[in-house]
Amino acid sequence: MPLERAQRALRIVSTIGEYLIDQLGARGVRHVFGIPGDYVLGFYDQLSKSRRLRLINTCDEQAAGFAADAYARVRGLGAVCVTYCVGGLKVANATAEAFAEKSPVVVISGAPGIKEREKNPLLHHKVKDFDTQKKVFEQLTCASTVLDDPQLAFQEIDRVLAAAERHKQPVYIELPRDMVFAHGVAHHQPRPVRASSDPPALRAALADASQMINAARRPVILADVELHRFALQPQLLKLARQTGLPVATTVLGKSVIGEDHSFYVGVYEGALGRDDVRRFIETSDCLIMLGAFLTDINLGIYTARLDPARSISANSEKISVGYRSYHDVSLEDFLAGLLKTRLRRRALGPIPHPPPPGAFRPRRRDAPITIKRLFQRLNDFIDSNTMVVADVGEALFAATDLYIRHPTEFLGPAYYASMGFAVPAGIGAQLAAPRKRPLVLVGDGAFQMTGMELATAARYGLNPVVIVLNNFGYGTERQIKDGPYNDLSLWNYSRVPEVLGAGRGFLVKTESELQSALAEAARFTRGFCLLEVQLDPADRSPALQRLAHRLSLRLSAASA
Amino acid sequence: MPLERAQRALRIVSTIGEYLIDQLGARGVRHVFGIPGDYVLGFYDQLSKSRRLRLINTCDEQAAGFAADAYARVRGLGAVCVTYCVGGLKVANATAEAFAEKSPVVVISGAPGIKEREKNPLLHHKVKDFDTQKKVFEQLTCASTVLDDPQLAFQEIDRVLAAAERHKQPVYIELPRDMVFAHGVAHHQPRPVRASSDPPALRAALADASQMINAARRPVILADVELHRFALQPQLLKLARQTGLPVATTVLGKSVIGEDHSFYVGVYEGALGRDDVRRFIETSDCLIMLGAFLTDINLGIYTARLDPARSISANSEKISVGYRSYHDVSLEDFLAGLLKTRLRRRALGPIPHPPPPGAFRPRRRDAPITIKRLFQRLNDFIDSNTMVVADVGEALFAATDLYIRHPTEFLGPAYYASMGFAVPAGIGAQLAAPRKRPLVLVGDGAFQMTGMELATAARYGLNPVVIVLNNFGYGTERQIKDGPYNDLSLWNYSRVPEVLGAGRGFLVKTESELQSALAEAARFTRGFCLLEVQLDPADRSPALQRLAHRLSLRLSAASA
Repeated sequence: MPLERAQRALRIVSTIGEYLIDQLGARGVRHVFGIPGDYVLGFYDQLSKSRRLRLINTCDEQAAGFAADAYARVRGLGAVCVTYCVGGLKVANATAEAFAEKSPVVVISGAPGIKEREKNPLLHHKVKDFDTQKKVFEQLTCASTVLDDPQLAFQEIDRVLAAAERHKQPVYIELPRDMVFAHGVAHHQPRPVRASSDPPALRAALADASQMINAARRPVILADVELHRFALQPQLLKLARQTGLPVATTVLGKSVIGEDHSFYVGVYEGALGRDDVRRFIETSDCLIMLGAFLTDINLGIYTARLDPARSISANSEKISVGYRSYHDVSLEDFLAGLLKTRLRRRALGPIPHPPPPGAFRPRRRDAPITIKRLFQRLNDFIDSNTMVVADVGEALFAATDLYIRHPTEFLGPAYYASMGFAVPAGIGAQLAAPRKRPLVLVGDGAFQMTGMELATAARYGLNPVVIVLNNFGYGTERQIKDGPYNDLSLWNYSRVPEVLGAGRGFLVKTESELQSALAEAARFTRGFCLLEVQLDPADRSPALQRLAHRLSLRLSAASA
Repeated sequence: MPLERAQRALRIVSTIGEYLIDQLGARGVRHVFGIPGDYVLGFYDQLSKSRRLRLINTCDEQAAGFAADAYARVRGLGAVCVTYCVGGLKVANATAEAFAEKSPVVVISGAPGIKEREKNPLLHHKVKDFDTQKKVFEQLTCASTVLDDPQLAFQEIDRVLAAAERHKQPVYIELPRDMVFAHGVAHHQPRPVRASSDPPALRAALADASQMINAARRPVILADVELHRFALQPQLLKLARQTGLPVATTVLGKSVIGEDHSFYVGVYEGALGRDDVRRFIETSDCLIMLGAFLTDINLGIYTARLDPARSISANSEKISVGYRSYHDVSLEDFLAGLLKTRLRRRALGPIPHPPPPGAFRPRRRDAPITIKRLFQRLNDFIDSNTMVVADVGEALFAATDLYIRHPTEFLGPAYYASMGFAVPAGIGAQLAAPRKRPLVLVGDGAFQMTGMELATAARYGLNPVVIVLNNFGYGTERQIKDGPYNDLSLWNYSRVPEVLGAGRGFLVKTESELQSALAEAARFTRGFCLLEVQLDPADRSPALQRLAHRLSLRLSAASA
């Protein structure tokens, strides 16, 4: 920001609350999700008067957490603001998801004033001690602070926000209510914190990596979610174009690269994915894993067969080439270095490639809709304005076979895998990228957790298209071990718009009903559309069948 | 349990999962609330085959936490069973409420197997480390354990369940999935843990207390929630009858004693309560506080004027008489001792007494319903089979003036005050006391958080009567500081039954609509009834007006 504007800001921004708002705004945050409560009302009032940030009230705090997570994934930083404990502890799970999947969410919690705490009284919302909530969030964030000292508050805000940006993980800021309007130090200058690599270590890593790549017969890149979080997708694209190396992604990393690129191989997930992709990756003599985390789901529940001796791995926590690893080398610097290194350019040989979706042709009008046919039809529905947001279970697994053309347009909790993510995430994602329309894929079980947040979508004029995959129970679990505990109470999902007084609902059982509902959803853009798609409970996508089979083998092994 | 049965149980119960089920059952638990996930499926299967415990699936885990809390309040012990992190962290807030308000809930979480953890792999649902969830729950429970060693598992289960019973607070049991079917030590005998008081300290406390009581001109008992939790209500009744001492309760302790007793004074809450009660309590020269916690809400946001020099206080954490306190004296022993001590018997003089509700006479048919008139009418609706469950806000504050005839029939989170409690709590409460019908009082804001759990009520054949106090926003907060953040999205609450395919919905705006809806609700007992009562957003119960005024004074003071 130009000096003059910065100085003006410094003159105006004097209270701790204002500084926090200012710094969030300076980092691109425009919306804050949450629900007020008396310990945070003063800051809410400040927020509501700010021109920079807009408050988005969800129905339950859980949804505010998921929405802020999605917002952070799309926009680079997100924020949720809640009251002490009764609000904060409701976003514990969503914050854990953001932590595990590297999404930088700033959790701001109101709290009793420092003066009120003196004699350790039993103030409402308190659990054990006044620092109970902070201790909980220390387990779920990469940095945390209680702004209890005006002399340090601005500095602490700088430190914690820098950690969120650097690690792409959530942070916790507790704002006691008597500190909101307290003045911080005058003339504070926010100092950007930048981590730089150790030059000799970086050089060594690059030398070893380029040697391995150039010596290899058929290197291939496996791109994962951190490229998206650190906004390194342009570098990935450049690297692929410069070298002619083919690129696959993991499930969690799906959509870090447009799937219509000629050098795009597909989603690799061990034995769970397409077999041609598996063979192509596992027979490579140099696998370049960028921003990748070897989670059980990414590894196809450990069906992946990857040889560390023939792998290069660079992520925000570690850089390694074969069995060698390098300290103090950042992912950004390593990737930038690779682009400057002399890597042999190769012609793109024959590679696997996801089949582009053909036009969907309806069969018999009254043919019951199947998962396979549903996703074929959805592939048609997706265009460059669509953003796919998938919940856990069949919604996510079947969606891995969707053909996503543009980067950053597929969101799904493919590692932490908390149910109830998608509907609120659709809200956060659309606020972060207002020109996109979310296509939300959600199972009946997950919809029962957070689906009524469509009220929030309606309130703020959003228009997601929500597909409820109604297979009458917890389908993934039925595949592993079935019992009455996998049944759900039955809702008339398509009638939810009547309760909310907004949106459009459709009940879909056949191919022709799907056709007309999606056609109507494409036309009706003033509000949300909810399609309850009733599926045969025994119907499964091939991906889910393979996954659930693997999970049940592990369960038996674990129980044996 | 007779020796023979115990021995039979010992022969049959051999795995860790079975032992846990057995010990919950032995302590009176009959229902376990939760949602399955793959890390807990083995135990769910065991649970579903057990004859002793019944699984109750809620829509979201949050509700399972609240339901188990209410169940524990009514029955003495409750249990919630969820999967690792994505389930467990969703019940963090409900567990905190149980902790703060002394409700013994056993939180059981599935987890990755011990063998699976060896190389610290990135298994799905993991946050930072495998013990992240345990560390979180250490902050929210009074005891916790990971059952990772078959040699110790039975002993650990004994220890942790004993802590729940002794402290009346939640405990955490993590059950790695490879331990469910592991065999514990043979011939293990559960040993009851009993805390006994130090006899001389107990004698000293009783001598000082009886002296102060007998010397006083007008002693009065203030009864609070712990009498309920420790099942000491019969002793309280006996003490009052034996001595002729009048009894008041706190808000949190409302209903520890039937309000139709001649010696019942009313609810004391400083300047927030009825003025005659306040004067009666504050001018007593010997206030006997039993099982009481001096929370801000119990103390009427610190408007209470209680003189420690003239107070006796006995709760599970501390016994004091004036400025003297006594170690190693339990509440039970102290109360039992008081009953055996020679206390002067007094004639009951003139005391305040809550006015018994007169019969409700409707005014003009189309007169809009007000909060005051609504609660007058509800007083008529309540009979000996009713159990009142109140959510936070107006629902709770207006309900303090309800006339509750029987003990244990009023549940409300009057200290921790988490919104969204009442609908799921109604489910837990009715399963715990199947002959009662819950009258659930819930604001529109709280209903939007967990109200759809009426699906769970329908699924298990429960029939709560749910009153949604729809004042179009967060009414309590509007009183403190108002802004657009206190608005809610507008739902047609009375149409929720159409989505759930169960229950009956009523839209109530006038006195006559209230009359006919309640009459119909009394007749329709096959399922839930939901009355959306539309109120003037400016309408407030006198209790809430006073409370919110106090809270806003504190907010201004804190912000100043």
